[in-house]
Order: sequence, then C-alpha cells, then structure tokens
Amino acid sequence: MNYKFLNKISSPKDIKDLSTDELKQLCDEIRHCLIHTVSKTGGHLASNLGVVELTVALHRAFNSPDDKILFDVGHQCYTHKLLTGRFYQFETLRQQGGLSGFMRPDESPHDPFVTGHSSNSVSAAFGIYKGNVIANDKSAYTISVVGDGAMTGGMLYEAMNNAGMGRNASTIVILNDNKMSISRNVGAFARHLSIIRSRPGYHRFKRITERVISYIPFIGKKINRHLLRSKNMLKNAIYHSNIFEDMGFHYLGPIDGHDLNRLEQTLNIAKAHNRPVLVHVLTVKGKGYNPAEVSPNNYHGVSAFDIENGASIAKKADFSAAVGDELLKLAALDEKLTVITAAMTDGTGLTEFSERYKNRFFDVGIAEEHAVTFAAGLAAGGAHPVFCVYSSFLQRAYDQLIHDVSISKLPVTICVDRAGIVGEDGETHQGVFDIAFLKTIPGVTVFAPSNYLELKTMLYKSIYETEGLSVVRYPRGVQQALPEDYVASGDDFAFYGNPASKSVIITFGRTFAAATDCYERLKNENIAVAVLKLNRIYPIADKVYDALKKFDNIYIFEEGISSGGINETLCKGLLNNSINAKVKTFAIEDEFIPHMKPEAALKKYKLDADSMYEIIKEDLYEK
Amino acid sequence: MNYKFLNKISSPKDIKDLSTDELKQLCDEIRHCLIHTVSKTGGHLASNLGVVELTVALHRAFNSPDDKILFDVGHQCYTHKLLTGRFYQFETLRQQGGLSGFMRPDESPHDPFVTGHSSNSVSAAFGIYKGNVIANDKSAYTISVVGDGAMTGGMLYEAMNNAGMGRNASTIVILNDNKMSISRNVGAFARHLSIIRSRPGYHRFKRITERVISYIPFIGKKINRHLLRSKNMLKNAIYHSNIFEDMGFHYLGPIDGHDLNRLEQTLNIAKAHNRPVLVHVLTVKGKGYNPAEVSPNNYHGVSAFDIENGASIAKKADFSAAVGDELLKLAALDEKLTVITAAMTDGTGLTEFSERYKNRFFDVGIAEEHAVTFAAGLAAGGAHPVFCVYSSFLQRAYDQLIHDVSISKLPVTICVDRAGIVGEDGETHQGVFDIAFLKTIPGVTVFAPSNYLELKTMLYKSIYETEGLSVVRYPRGVQQALPEDYVASGDDFAFYGNPASKSVIITFGRTFAAATDCYERLKNENIAVAVLKLNRIYPIADKVYDALKKFDNIYIFEEGISSGGINETLCKGLLNNSINAKVKTFAIEDEFIPHMKPEAALKKYKLDADSMYEIIKEDLYEK
Repeated sequence: MNYKFLNKISSPKDIKDLSTDELKQLCDEIRHCLIHTVSKTGGHLASNLGVVELTVALHRAFNSPDDKILFDVGHQCYTHKLLTGRFYQFETLRQQGGLSGFMRPDESPHDPFVTGHSSNSVSAAFGIYKGNVIANDKSAYTISVVGDGAMTGGMLYEAMNNAGMGRNASTIVILNDNKMSISRNVGAFARHLSIIRSRPGYHRFKRITERVISYIPFIGKKINRHLLRSKNMLKNAIYHSNIFEDMGFHYLGPIDGHDLNRLEQTLNIAKAHNRPVLVHVLTVKGKGYNPAEVSPNNYHGVSAFDIENGASIAKKADFSAAVGDELLKLAALDEKLTVITAAMTDGTGLTEFSERYKNRFFDVGIAEEHAVTFAAGLAAGGAHPVFCVYSSFLQRAYDQLIHDVSISKLPVTICVDRAGIVGEDGETHQGVFDIAFLKTIPGVTVFAPSNYLELKTMLYKSIYETEGLSVVRYPRGVQQALPEDYVASGDDFAFYGNPASKSVIITFGRTFAAATDCYERLKNENIAVAVLKLNRIYPIADKVYDALKKFDNIYIFEEGISSGGINETLCKGLLNNSINAKVKTFAIEDEFIPHMKPEAALKKYKLDADSMYEIIKEDLYEK
Repeated sequence: MNYKFLNKISSPKDIKDLSTDELKQLCDEIRHCLIHTVSKTGGHLASNLGVVELTVALHRAFNSPDDKILFDVGHQCYTHKLLTGRFYQFETLRQQGGLSGFMRPDESPHDPFVTGHSSNSVSAAFGIYKGNVIANDKSAYTISVVGDGAMTGGMLYEAMNNAGMGRNASTIVILNDNKMSISRNVGAFARHLSIIRSRPGYHRFKRITERVISYIPFIGKKINRHLLRSKNMLKNAIYHSNIFEDMGFHYLGPIDGHDLNRLEQTLNIAKAHNRPVLVHVLTVKGKGYNPAEVSPNNYHGVSAFDIENGASIAKKADFSAAVGDELLKLAALDEKLTVITAAMTDGTGLTEFSERYKNRFFDVGIAEEHAVTFAAGLAAGGAHPVFCVYSSFLQRAYDQLIHDVSISKLPVTICVDRAGIVGEDGETHQGVFDIAFLKTIPGVTVFAPSNYLELKTMLYKSIYETEGLSVVRYPRGVQQALPEDYVASGDDFAFYGNPASKSVIITFGRTFAAATDCYERLKNENIAVAVLKLNRIYPIADKVYDALKKFDNIYIFEEGISSGGINETLCKGLLNNSINAKVKTFAIEDEFIPHMKPEAALKKYKLDADSMYEIIKEDLYEK
C-alpha cells in the first residue's frame, strides 16, 4: 500500500485540515500500517485497531502537546504515535533502542506521562491539570482514554472521586468500551456498563423523560404534595443515573467509536463543559482486520504473525502453562483449591482451569489489592487459595500481603509469573522487584524453580507444606535446558559442580542454567567451581552458611533488583557467620530496564553464562 | 455507675432476650464504659460512641461467630469487644499484653479478620463467605461495617465490583455514615452521599414514584412509543439510582443509626435478601458524650483525658507539627509548593496549611495510590508536590512510587510520618517497612532526621536539591534530646564521639539519641566508641565506607525491619569494600510488633541505650 496521507503527518496539526473522505483514507492507512508493523514486530494489535478513529478525533478536537492526552495502560497508543511524528520510526516498535510499546515522556512531548500499569491515568491527568494551574497559571485540557477493563481498578475510582469535585477542572475521561478487555461476567461494573449501553441516545432519553414528567401535573387527579415532591426526586434521579454521574462527571454517550464526525462533535461538546466530563465511546476491538475482530483475545498481545491467514506462532509450553496444568491436577484431588486471577486468565495459563472449575475460579478484574485480600479471606474461610499474578502487578498489593495475609499468618499461595526480566514490554513490566519487597514481609517463604519439574514440586510445597504467605516465582517463557547430570531435589538448596573447589557461584531460578554452562566451560580450562543453587530463596536456610564456610571466593548472581535483594541477605548472613571469603555480587543495578530482548538485558547485568565465565576466569587466573 | 447488664454479657446470645428498655439501658452502660475506659487508656472514642446501637443491633440480628462481622479499619469495634466476652479485660485496652484497639483473630473467635488499614473489609468478607462455601459447604452471613471515609478507598470499589455480581452471596455491607470521618468537601462520593441522605424514606420514594409512573398511560394524550419506552427506562433509572445499586448491591436506607428497633428490623430485611445488600445507616460521631459530639475530630483518637470537662492533654509540638510549620514557611516563599494528604490533615500537622493555602492543598480521601500518582502528575505539570503520609499507609502506594514517580524521575517529596515503632496501635500501624521497600526503588533518596532542626534542613533538601523521588522519614511524637556538643550538619553523615576509637555504632533517626547516650556511658568506663550518624540513609555515600575502613568493630542499629533494611545495604557495602571488621546488626526481626509502648518495643529489639551499652560493653571487655 502506498500511503497518501500517513507518511506526510509529522504532527497532529497536519490532520486538522483533512476532509472527511481524506480522514477515512487516513484511517485505512493507519490500520494497514498497524497490521503490517505488528505482524513483524509483535505487540498489541486488537486494541490499537479499535481506537484508530477515536485517536484521530482526539487529535483533531484537542491540541497536543498543549492539551495532554493520556492512554491508560498505554498499549493502545500506536495510532497516537503515528500521528505525533513517529511514523518513520514505527518499524522499530518494541525493539532495543526503538520506540516503546507504551507512552514514554522521554520519547515525545506528546506523551505526557508514563503508562504501562492500569487505572492510573485519571490520577496523573488530574495532577497534571492542577500542576499546570498552580505552576503556570495555565488551564489546558487533560484527557484520559480508559478501557472498560481499566475501570475495574480501584485507583480509577479514587481519582474520579477526587477529580469529580472540580468545578472548573478540564478533566475529560474517555471510556473506551470495547466490551472485550474484560469478559462479560467480570464484576458488577461490567453489568452496569451493559445497562448503560442499552440506553441508546441517552440525551434524547433525558429529554423525553423530562417531558413525561412535565405531563404529570396535567393528570387532573390526585395531585398532592407527595406527587410533587416525587417529581423533583425523579428529576434528580434521572440526572444522577449512572456511576459516572454519581462520581461528579457529566456523562456523554454512548457513541459509536468508529463514526469520526460523531466523535469529533461529541469531543467538542465535552470541551465546552466547564466541569469533569466522561465520554462513553463504543469501539470494536480488532476493527478492520478480520481475524482480530473474530478473536480479539488472541490478538490482544501477539508475536509476529502471518497477515494473510492470521496464523500466529503456536503457543509454546511455558512456565505459565505448567502452572495451569499443575493446578488442574491439584484441583482434581483437592476440593478446597481455589484459584484467583486479576484479569490475566490467559496470560497466567488458567484458561482451562477457569472453564473446568467455574466455582473455584475467580477473575476479580484488574484489582490486585482486592485479589490478595480476597485470597486472605478465602484462606480464613477454609479454602486453599492460589493467586496467579505477574510480578510487576503484584507490586500493587504489597500492603495487602503484609496487612491482610501475613499479620494473621493466613495460608495464601502466590504464583508470581513474569518474575525477572520480561523483555520487549520494557520498564513498566519488568518483574525485578518481587524478591526485594517480598523478603521484607515477616513469615514469607519464596521459592524459585528453574524448570517445570521443580515448579510443580515447589507449588505443592507452597500450598500444602508451608505456613503463612508462600510464593513461587518463575520467569516469562520456557524453561532453560539443565545439564543431564543435574538431579532436581526438593531440598532448600543443592550443589552442582566441583564440591572440592574453593570458589562457588550462588544463584537460583533462570540463571542457574547459565551458571552450569559457566561451570562446564571453566572445567574445560581446569578451573574448578561449585554452583550453589537456592530453591527456597527466602528465608535462606542456616545450612547454606555452614556449607559456605569452606569457600574462599563467592560469586552471587541474582536476576532481580540489587538493592534489597537476596544478594544482600547473603552478605549479611556471611558477615554474621564470620565467613571471610571474597564476595562479589551481580544483580540488576539501581535503574529501570528499557525494552530489549531478555538475553540482552541479562548480558547487560552480567547474568548470562558469558559474563559469569569472564568474571570468574579473570579472578581465578590472577591467583 | 453500677452496671446491671453489661457485666453479665459473656457472649452475644446474652443480649438476644433483652427488652427494648433493657437494651436502652445496656447502651447507656456501654457508653459509660467506653468513656471511662478510654479516658484512662486513650484510644478511639467518638467513632465508638457512634456505633453503640448499631453494634447491639448487629449482634441481635446475626449470630457471631458463625456469622462474621467485620469492622472496617476496626477502631470502632470497642462495643463489639464488650459484647463478645471481653468486658472484664476491657480496661487493658491498648496496653502491652492487653486487648488490641483493633480486631484480632487471635484475640477472639468473634474477630474474623485482622483490621487496621482502611477499605479492605469487603474483600475479606467476600473471601470468607466464598471460602466457607467452598471448603465447608456452609453459607453464613458476612457483614462489613464500613465508614463513609473508608468508602473513598479504591479497594472497596474493587471488592464491591466483585461481590456485587453474586446472586446468592450473603454479603451485607453496612455503610456507617457519620458525615464526619471525612470532611464534607472531600470528593465526589461525599457529595453523592449527601444527595442520597436528602432522600428520606428512599423505599417510600420508590413506591410513590412507581405510582407516578403508573399514572402516565392514563394521561389520555400523546401516548406513543417513545413515552412507553421512556417509562421503562425511567423504572430502570429509579432502581439504579445510586452508586451502590450500580455496583450490584440492593440498597436499604438511609436509616437512623440510633434507633435500635429500626436497625434490627432493617438488618432482618437485609438478611432476607438472597443477594448483596448495602444498608445505609446514619450515625452521630461522639453520640452521648457532649464534648465528643461537639468536636468529633478532637475525639477521634485521643490520649487519656478528663471526663468532666473533656480536657485532653494539650497537643505537644512534635515532628508532624514541625513539618506543618516548615511547609507553611516554604509555601509563603514558593508559589508552586503543593501539599497532599490522604485523609490525615490533622494527623500529619497540616490543619493550618489546609486553611491558609486552600488552592494548593489536596485531601484526596483514604486513597494513597491516587495520592502518589496525583503528586506525580502535579510534578509533571510543574508544581512542587509534597505528600504527607504515615509510613504504614505508604505501603499501599509502592507500585505508584515505582511506576508513576520513579520511572519518569518526577520530583516528588514524600514526608513519611510515624516512621518506625508507633506504640499502642500495634501491628497494623507500625512504620517499620518503609526503609526496606523504598530502597528497592531506583533513584530514590531517603533522609532520616533526628530532631526538628534536621527535619527542616532535610525537607528543604528533599524538595529543592534532590532529583526524582525523595523521602523524609521521622518518628511519631517528639524529638529526642541530643547532646549539647552535637552540631547538626547538612552532610550525608556525621561522626560523634571518639574519632580515634576502633569501634563504631552506625545508626540514624530516633535511635541516634540512644547511641549518644550509650557513648557517654561507655566513655565513663573508659571504653571508646565513635557514633556514625547517617542523615541520608539511602543511597549510602561512598565516603561512609572510606570512613569505616579504620574500624575493627561495627555495630549497626536500625529502627526498621531487618530483612531488606539499611543494615543489609551496609553489610554488602562493607564486603564490596573489603572491610574486614567484625559486624553486628540489630534491627526489627522477622515478626510483627504487637501493641506496647514504643520504649518497650525499642528495648525488645535492642535499639535503646541500655541494650546498646550492654552489647558493646560485653564485646569490648572480652578483648
């Protein structure tokens, strides 16, 4: 396809003068570009196809970057990137050094705030609005585009409660309702939305019902004080008839999110209000690409795929799938086993579980705080709860893990998926903090399997043999190949390599495979090392220190943030046990990791076999 | 007052057969007991006086402990304690070894879940309900009593969204609306509540308006399709006319929370519903004790006071007040300075600020997550935001500190009040985790002043001289007396004591005073030590390690959780710098600290001058 318009847009002002027909052509070109790029780079497809017209309309009605447009979560910001001077970089999407798959203020002045985690955009937008008023005496529009899924996050409610009081706040929330980002049965809010959707022409409805009420006095009989008061109450009820209005927002909609003229018209009405407004827009996820329209869930986040037939790379066995399989087996044996997800049924490998055990499966929406406390409640009630969640999102429930689970020592298991480096999703999705924040919680136990077999053993231990809060953490993707002579044990730690050596590598989880590789290469050069593999990474067993006394050189490799990590626990333990070895620690340094392949990030922090080999070889040759 | 009923109640069943008059007498006795006990022990008074009748009615309508009654936050559970076999222990309230001021499952089977932090009770209650169904095939009622303040927390919305879908869920939420737990202008929700309150006899209103609608077809003219459809829509609107109904809850109320018969009647109606119900109860905070009714805020949490005139111990100057004073001064000089609280205006010393700088002060409700991201937005918009929050509540915004503030390096200052051991409020309120979770965040700076003067210096540094996320943490209460010859500096660290010694105490914040005391006592016995005081506790300055090289014995005392604390940072730093001193670390061990006086808790973890003295003396005499 030869683009006629898209390649000429260097900023949003370039679309202001296009005619309706030209805009339609532009939207076609954007869709073509989205499909062709994502089919090569991977990324979020269905959600982006759904908001093409909406994004065009936003950039026509508002003036970015003076007006601030925030895409909540941000995986649907590709059209925004194409319209804000990033068309020629677009093929670098999600690649190291290239465009981020989310909004990044350091990437463009048109990205006013970092996005990635759900439901924070109204807080940020209201803050930016107030900040501009206070600091610059400037009152620009701030617009948050929020999916119906993100609406299940409590933080959004907190923000609307705060922003909804504003009399002059130019806060506009666009509800991008595609009915798909969460399944229909997730929560009362989804049902409430479907009721609102069933009222076509909400404004016309208001006008008509007002007319109905105006008839009442002419009924001619039984007009009494009660009836008159009721009439006023009724009026009040009509003007406060959905949750957004309850929260102080003026409601506009629902409107067709693929009707450009209607969208622009409504956005201009929203601008004219001198108070918070919510615009309810109905979009079709995957719009314009048939395979994605038919199966939007399959095209939410995709790897590279074949455009012709939509064939994606087949889903591999991975850690998530292994967890899903094992939970199915355990649920068959244990009627109390109950599984929770926070809107990540598919991502955490629970699709089959959700179908097979409907009564013992809970998708609570994007609500990690509630998920953890709900799990604590389930445990208090006698069930065996397992909450499967990405490492990066568990950060949101730190207080609940402390306050609701651990003070009462309730037996809750957390399966921490995407633990460690995640790759192309970048800073906001890295799972590098979980070890450090979990180990601060009194009574917690943390397991880190290196392969599926260990995962299953540890999951069992966690649910049935560990008291209080218990965590199993595992990386995104597939298991690493381990040496044939390594035998997984159920013990807290295990040695591999040369037991007589004076040097030891301590590691766990994914990087254990790299350590064994390093061991092999050093062995070939007659450098003897042992590898100490931690299975239970917290608390560290006392016997670990007994076993470490004989070593002169200790190398600790941790796929997690350095400050607060297990490497520090070990350092304190070594000092407390008066072990006078030379110690070197390698972990993720005090910074955020941008989007790049996991292998590249592991190399950057010296957590790959090559780095381990070089570090130790240089050290031991010197001696 | 000689009790006739209260002293004879050993379980809730003892109140089931009392007559209306007897119950009234019982309520009087309870109030008398509350006022007299709290006047001696200190504690929460006004909120407890407000829910006497409600608690009595709950225990008559439901069967605890089979039915589970949860008091959200839990500071209003005193009457519940009196009715569930704890009358004779009640005078031990909030004292070491005595009754907790909150619900504690290990204290009584009538306390189904731990409480302390706001807005978690519906999550827990729904979990307990489902857990009982799954594990025991038992469907008991779970009742959450939630204040209007707690309703501003997003977690409650997440839980109602989840629980509101239940068809058979015996989930009952009691909204304890005293219009006082938050001030009237905090948030759209408070306004929505006041609209609901203005509809007396909501059910009667429904009946009447239904009748109004039923008249419409008889109007005799212009009856057309539109009007008929409108009629149905109108009906729908009436049945979904407040936020609770939007969330799938059947709404009952508002009812007078001091009318025992009405309460019981309504609770029995709620029981009969086979779906989630919200009962809206209007109570008067401080009811029955005139000084508390007149100034409920002053009697929210109180120290011991004089019952006759209500005179409380005068509010002392403390760290919170010092922060408030300093922010007032800075705000006068800096028009961009903006201050945020999460429903803790008074507690964090901001009352005067809130009145003087209305446009630059935001009370966002009990919404720490929103508060942090809102602060990030303010910073992005150009303002200078300062969020004042208790350490224990900041735990709720860990993800927002990472994701919304730090990835973008936005200049946000957090004043962490009640950092460290807090005393009588116990486990749920201890501020012992903030150092450990904050130091995991890339780019964070953490300051720990020991007195008001340092606090002011550090606050200034934090706002104007530090990049990115910056934190000042200080304890509850007053500054410690420091030695006269100690001169506070603006440096990252400072030495005190004997610079020629081979032994050093490292500490910071409140425990620095204890260290100087210990130094003095050791000096009197001719044992020489130096004290290294950290001012910037994270990151640790490299020069600290240079300075430590000369010491043989290093004693680290940290008023914070041991696992993940600064003591571990120092241990790693010592190893990385090949410092071969003997190191001993003392911090709060891997457990939760129950309610006791701060001095007792400090002693327990060897963080007081006596313990420091004994540890070091024993060590150095041996040599």
